Amino acid sequence: MMIKECQKQCVMMMNLKAFLCAAAALQVANGFTAVGPSSPLRQSALFMTTEEAPTKEIKVGVIGCGRIGLVHLEATTKAPGVTPIIVSNPTVSKAEAAAKQYNVKKFTNDAMEVIEDPEVDAVWICSPSQYHAEQIKAAAANGKHVFCEKPIATDLGETVEAINACNEAGVKLMIGLQRRFDQNFKRVQEAVQKKEVGEPIMVKLCSRDPSPPPFSYVEGGGGIFADMAVHDLDMSRFLAGDDPIDILAIGSCHIDKSIEKLPGSEKFDTASCLVRYPNGVQAMIDVCRQSSFGYDQRAEVLGTQGMIQTDNVYPNTAKIYKNDFTGNADMPYDFFLSRYNEAYVTETIAFCESLVNDTPVPCTGEDGLVALIMALAADKSAEENRWVSFREIVEQVYCASPTECELLATSEVFPDGFKPTGKAADLLLPREDQQKGEGAGSLQRWWSNMVKSD
Amino acid sequence: MMIKECQKQCVMMMNLKAFLCAAAALQVANGFTAVGPSSPLRQSALFMTTEEAPTKEIKVGVIGCGRIGLVHLEATTKAPGVTPIIVSNPTVSKAEAAAKQYNVKKFTNDAMEVIEDPEVDAVWICSPSQYHAEQIKAAAANGKHVFCEKPIATDLGETVEAINACNEAGVKLMIGLQRRFDQNFKRVQEAVQKKEVGEPIMVKLCSRDPSPPPFSYVEGGGGIFADMAVHDLDMSRFLAGDDPIDILAIGSCHIDKSIEKLPGSEKFDTASCLVRYPNGVQAMIDVCRQSSFGYDQRAEVLGTQGMIQTDNVYPNTAKIYKNDFTGNADMPYDFFLSRYNEAYVTETIAFCESLVNDTPVPCTGEDGLVALIMALAADKSAEENRWVSFREIVEQVYCASPTECELLATSEVFPDGFKPTGKAADLLLPREDQQKGEGAGSLQRWWSNMVKSD
Amino acid sequence: MMIKECQKQCVMMMNLKAFLCAAAALQVANGFTAVGPSSPLRQSALFMTTEEAPTKEIKVGVIGCGRIGLVHLEATTKAPGVTPIIVSNPTVSKAEAAAKQYNVKKFTNDAMEVIEDPEVDAVWICSPSQYHAEQIKAAAANGKHVFCEKPIATDLGETVEAINACNEAGVKLMIGLQRRFDQNFKRVQEAVQKKEVGEPIMVKLCSRDPSPPPFSYVEGGGGIFADMAVHDLDMSRFLAGDDPIDILAIGSCHIDKSIEKLPGSEKFDTASCLVRYPNGVQAMIDVCRQSSFGYDQRAEVLGTQGMIQTDNVYPNTAKIYKNDFTGNADMPYDFFLSRYNEAYVTETIAFCESLVNDTPVPCTGEDGLVALIMALAADKSAEENRWVSFREIVEQVYCASPTECELLATSEVFPDGFKPTGKAADLLLPREDQQKGEGAGSLQRWWSNMVKSD
Amino acid sequence: MMIKECQKQCVMMMNLKAFLCAAAALQVANGFTAVGPSSPLRQSALFMTTEEAPTKEIKVGVIGCGRIGLVHLEATTKAPGVTPIIVSNPTVSKAEAAAKQYNVKKFTNDAMEVIEDPEVDAVWICSPSQYHAEQIKAAAANGKHVFCEKPIATDLGETVEAINACNEAGVKLMIGLQRRFDQNFKRVQEAVQKKEVGEPIMVKLCSRDPSPPPFSYVEGGGGIFADMAVHDLDMSRFLAGDDPIDILAIGSCHIDKSIEKLPGSEKFDTASCLVRYPNGVQAMIDVCRQSSFGYDQRAEVLGTQGMIQTDNVYPNTAKIYKNDFTGNADMPYDFFLSRYNEAYVTETIAFCESLVNDTPVPCTGEDGLVALIMALAADKSAEENRWVSFREIVEQVYCASPTECELLATSEVFPDGFKPTGKAADLLLPREDQQKGEGAGSLQRWWSNMVKSD
Repeated sequence: MMIKECQKQCVMMMNLKAFLCAAAALQVANGFTAVGPSSPLRQSALFMTTEEAPTKEIKVGVIGCGRIGLVHLEATTKAPGVTPIIVSNPTVSKAEAAAKQYNVKKFTNDAMEVIEDPEVDAVWICSPSQYHAEQIKAAAANGKHVFCEKPIATDLGETVEAINACNEAGVKLMIGLQRRFDQNFKRVQEAVQKKEVGEPIMVKLCSRDPSPPPFSYVEGGGGIFADMAVHDLDMSRFLAGDDPIDILAIGSCHIDKSIEKLPGSEKFDTASCLVRYPNGVQAMIDVCRQSSFGYDQRAEVLGTQGMIQTDNVYPNTAKIYKNDFTGNADMPYDFFLSRYNEAYVTETIAFCESLVNDTPVPCTGEDGLVALIMALAADKSAEENRWVSFREIVEQVYCASPTECELLATSEVFPDGFKPTGKAADLLLPREDQQKGEGAGSLQRWWSNMVKSD
Repeated sequence: MMIKECQKQCVMMMNLKAFLCAAAALQVANGFTAVGPSSPLRQSALFMTTEEAPTKEIKVGVIGCGRIGLVHLEATTKAPGVTPIIVSNPTVSKAEAAAKQYNVKKFTNDAMEVIEDPEVDAVWICSPSQYHAEQIKAAAANGKHVFCEKPIATDLGETVEAINACNEAGVKLMIGLQRRFDQNFKRVQEAVQKKEVGEPIMVKLCSRDPSPPPFSYVEGGGGIFADMAVHDLDMSRFLAGDDPIDILAIGSCHIDKSIEKLPGSEKFDTASCLVRYPNGVQAMIDVCRQSSFGYDQRAEVLGTQGMIQTDNVYPNTAKIYKNDFTGNADMPYDFFLSRYNEAYVTETIAFCESLVNDTPVPCTGEDGLVALIMALAADKSAEENRWVSFREIVEQVYCASPTECELLATSEVFPDGFKPTGKAADLLLPREDQQKGEGAGSLQRWWSNMVKSD
Repeated sequence: MMIKECQKQCVMMMNLKAFLCAAAALQVANGFTAVGPSSPLRQSALFMTTEEAPTKEIKVGVIGCGRIGLVHLEATTKAPGVTPIIVSNPTVSKAEAAAKQYNVKKFTNDAMEVIEDPEVDAVWICSPSQYHAEQIKAAAANGKHVFCEKPIATDLGETVEAINACNEAGVKLMIGLQRRFDQNFKRVQEAVQKKEVGEPIMVKLCSRDPSPPPFSYVEGGGGIFADMAVHDLDMSRFLAGDDPIDILAIGSCHIDKSIEKLPGSEKFDTASCLVRYPNGVQAMIDVCRQSSFGYDQRAEVLGTQGMIQTDNVYPNTAKIYKNDFTGNADMPYDFFLSRYNEAYVTETIAFCESLVNDTPVPCTGEDGLVALIMALAADKSAEENRWVSFREIVEQVYCASPTECELLATSEVFPDGFKPTGKAADLLLPREDQQKGEGAGSLQRWWSNMVKSD
Repeated sequence: MMIKECQKQCVMMMNLKAFLCAAAALQVANGFTAVGPSSPLRQSALFMTTEEAPTKEIKVGVIGCGRIGLVHLEATTKAPGVTPIIVSNPTVSKAEAAAKQYNVKKFTNDAMEVIEDPEVDAVWICSPSQYHAEQIKAAAANGKHVFCEKPIATDLGETVEAINACNEAGVKLMIGLQRRFDQNFKRVQEAVQKKEVGEPIMVKLCSRDPSPPPFSYVEGGGGIFADMAVHDLDMSRFLAGDDPIDILAIGSCHIDKSIEKLPGSEKFDTASCLVRYPNGVQAMIDVCRQSSFGYDQRAEVLGTQGMIQTDNVYPNTAKIYKNDFTGNADMPYDFFLSRYNEAYVTETIAFCESLVNDTPVPCTGEDGLVALIMALAADKSAEENRWVSFREIVEQVYCASPTECELLATSEVFPDGFKPTGKAADLLLPREDQQKGEGAGSLQRWWSNMVKSD
């Protein structure tokens, strides 16, 4: 019955169908046996490292040798127990140069060679965004752990699929939300976590790019919430330490008026958001595509017992005093690569540590998914001039219409826990570490429960 | 016909009736003659000062000898050409002490003695808020100029009446929006005005009281938007240099949970607002009734060519460095009286200057009215979880129902310019300086026009 | 014998002679009776205020209606229990205008009319420096308390004489070392006094004028230590809370090279000093006559348990961020009148309080004297390229030569306590409050002791 | 004659003898032929890199695998064109671990194996200070370039010898004065160099260690000027951009009183220096062994057209606001390894670049020598309570007594340029890059000139 039922549901569900069908098919193929160490999901030697000597070496490959790829490649050379063994880049000379500089033994122009390299335990995806989802899925299919620069994908369905591909394959997936590793934002998060300022009341974020991107980048780029504010939306959630409820967003255009004719939030170069979190916690976010004084990134959290606040970052502490001004000797960092240079290194090392020690990754695929959902909701809010709950967006993945959604919510095909509640986690299979947390065979039990509930 | 028509309209209009009827009656009584120098509206010697020697002395009285009254009293002693001659306070010993300290020749326990004193040219109203409207109207009736601590009144109708009483009497009315005179906020406003940071894009204001008021103050106090955020709503307008369009507000309760049962925005101790101004300018305001580190008042304006920002204010520049912290040697100013001490003096002197030179006051009754309207709109927005335009609030003053409003808007009784457009200015007669600006007899012409339009 | 002996000593002592002879003569005239309430020294009603109602009014006169005179005049109007009743200025129209603005009943062009006015209890000397000593002595002779802008005199001998004239007359003398009343420096001093940073180790002071004075001011002005660094030398003593031992100073010329030909420290526009205090406490001072970014005045104290530090002062907290700089929106205060505006008021009120309550003044003549001695020692150090002890300078007042000094030190004409030890206090009679502290008739006893010791 | 003459001079000259004799002997051995590519001085392949492909690889060895050794080792892995191939440490397991982490192929417990390794082009000396001079000389003898952590040696004679060993061998010597590579100090230096604040007038440096070292470290450590202030003395010279003239220093003891019995400047935990530079430029330096708030390192330069100033450094920009303080969320960096972590990397890379490109090193042996001379002069000044010129110290190296010095200065054995002028450079042979700057065979010509001058 299950397969037939599945087919029926597939008609109804637009985005979930791929993974549900695939997963169900897999179960059938497996004859409902446990996903054991002999399965392709467990090809990676990583999972045995904890029982073995702690000096087990993790071998990694890096896809993309652009600036960000090199940052990650260099970082992998610093992480104890990790060795980069292959790099790829479409322009192979760049791969060769990178290999030479960092003593990497192999290089190629083909990302798939990295993904399929039997020596490789983990893959760093530093290619352009449009290749991310596909490469994640390929890596998962080859049992490789994945570090992926954000975003996972630009589309919600693909994002879910890519994450679930990893979860299903039991490989780690870490998303490069590098601001979480910046020493300034991290310090604010720690203060909240340790209740240094009491219970959080208000989270404020300000984010401004130095100058607006060209028209060609903005057009079709997904709009200011998806291509820019998404970092701040994620950061508000990181700092609030909770999942948000709903959002109110507005936008306006002040600088390059040519974009005003673009659809949706692509027409905005300035936007403000209010995000509501449980317990009345409020987040205020403002972003702008132009800050004539350089990249501007600040955070503030007011709590019941105080406030913590970060200032923008400068390359040095020098101040200069002249007859017409007194202030910083130099401008702030010009953009994200200089500002977050250290954070990129820190996040790579953090992922390496979770590979070596087989611990949960600090930035999950779900984090990337929720950030995207928040951006989509902001888009809708600005469009419709009203509060939009994240539930609305999550439910779109399940349902082509409210009726369908209703139907799905009451359908007996799903266990209660899998019926849409509006939480992003509902869209996903258990993470690799959650599967483990729940004991051996948990993914199998999950599937079994699902079948039994029918 | 006019009086009859007026009576009819009076039934329909709740708040405008008082002044319209009174004004119409006045015109009749005056036989449509110009409001000349012999009328009671011109009793004050002030209007002759410009023709006379520049050393003409302005004599003033101060109602209320509490802390804020003394601040204003002292300030009047510093203003060239201004002499305080009478002070009042219900507890007369306070008035006596104040009179002695500042060499004021008369004191009394009766505010009306100040208002009716024939020597007095201008009255400072520093009494509790509930007496403001009544005292303003009494002062106007006696042809005295008025400086009134904010608010004019807590009710919209009374506010309109009090302002119009002054406008009709042709006396100056200045409202004590003291933050506009703070050297920090003023500096930001100047930057915007002089386009030091280009065209404004985003105005951000943060305002936090040191600790929440007692339950008894909150209950019936009008809620967080009217009793607290009103200053910031005014400031956003002051900085944006324009009249706002609509507002979105939210609130939450984090500190004293006992207030959660109160109605409307009285239940909030924390609130955020987004205000939209013409040309896409956005304002973000956050307020909180508790800031464990003292009074916190900051502003930021992002423009197309830069940003200007003020920090909170400390009593000195000393920093201390110890083994467990490094930072400011002292806490910020504790509350508004210490923080804005100088601003109170500056605003008093500013009003004195407009009296001596017969120039427009820098903070008009209309400014006080708009601030109140913004607070009321914020209240409604938080209540109804939606954007609320200020037009909605303005129209409430004209109309008991949409139908009435419609009727009024099309009524022939008003000239076109006086039909409700949703602007606060529509509610008011021309200010004393506007009347003058329009040449002699302008108020009369205004009334004549109104009659002719019938 | 005493008068004869005195005459003999007068030959020997250059600077002490005036007051010793005068004092001795006074004693003779008094027939050694106590200086009682009927003496001209007690004409002032001030000394009876403590027994009388606390509302006893102090009447004051102000000599000089320039900018600094007006600052002090306005301040006296704010001090409870104090009333300015007469002001003087050589250009009488300025005195008249000041009298009018501050409701002062009398004005004159003659400083002596202020000093001799029988109603006046205390005189503010805000005239040019060259008149200070003479006016102080005249005021003392008329039994008036004295507030004197610094310096007391430019010459050491005259300084001693002026102070002793007040001490002998039993009137209060306060010197306007206004920086001690600046909220920033005062805060540092409090920190030291309260041991907030432990025991002091190092005091650092930096002081820079916005631009060099004209050649004509520098020439004959006494040099950079006397006309500029003297404030910082006093401040180092104020912060160290102790009397200094010796000084090492250097100077150089960088800006207006025309002054290089001037003698002594007049040729310097830049100078550094090291001052040694008891217990190894070190003070470092650097001054410069040009700071292209405005007046620059900062202090730092390192103690065994921390550091306290003040930053320069700006008119507001606004910061501006543009495409070519980010920093303070405005320049620091331009010079001492704007920077220390509040401090001038605070010091005036402090003196008024000591008049009303008959308490010691916070800035004594001795403070002014020591500051001058420090400046003279710095001069000598820079000239001779070596450490100079303050004792050397003090001893110059007693002695025309080391031999004379030796002779004086062993002479029987003085009690032991009055023989030169190198301390500035040795040069002075007991202050008015010290006389009181030592009980009634203490000045008489002091003289008696002196006579007996012969 | 020369050898004989040399022997004679050797009696007279204490410190110069070693290199003069050696050099003279070398010339004899060489038969006055040019020091050509076949000589052992040119074993290193480095000197050919400019003519060859720019991808020529530099192979390096690191002596010492303590914390600072690892910092430099990691930095060498980042420098393009440089490969670490051997590391040594007395505890060989540390060398092994380091080799493993950074993919270094050889490790040893013997520093000489690094120095003598034929593959090695350059040696990093990160061993304890007492081994520096000896290892530098050994490296020079083996034709290896040298990077040496400061100090070169603790004794002036040995310092001269070590530097001259390198100069004579024609190898590069770079001294690890890492503060010159700190982004903050470097920025100040750049401002001076580019005249951003006009011509320098005053250089101010403040340097404080977090807490005093143990008695055992202080005793015999050379005193506060040699073991601590030496960095600031060098920095004052780096910022002034000139060689200093003389110094005045004082010291005192405030914290651990047990050191007060130690000789010379070992008894001080606090010291101040004034240093005079040409053109009247003044430097003020204050150091303290205890700063309860962490490592404190700041610089300020006043110029004729402005000021530049660096603040102390914190790990992040977060500020926290609580009910009892408002300030930095975290303490400053605790000590030099954390504060200058990046600077250590930058200086290593700078040396690597000068190796790869065969350009002058940015921090020469002479820089290390002058810093030591300044510290010795400070010591003498504090001891003798007077200004001490650096010439005095330099002359000590030449002369056992003033007579000898006189003799030497007039001796015909030296060319004029080599007679002692009091400049540190007089003590040294031309640097490797100076030899080159003067064209092929310049060292030979120098020797020839010297001989001819006899």
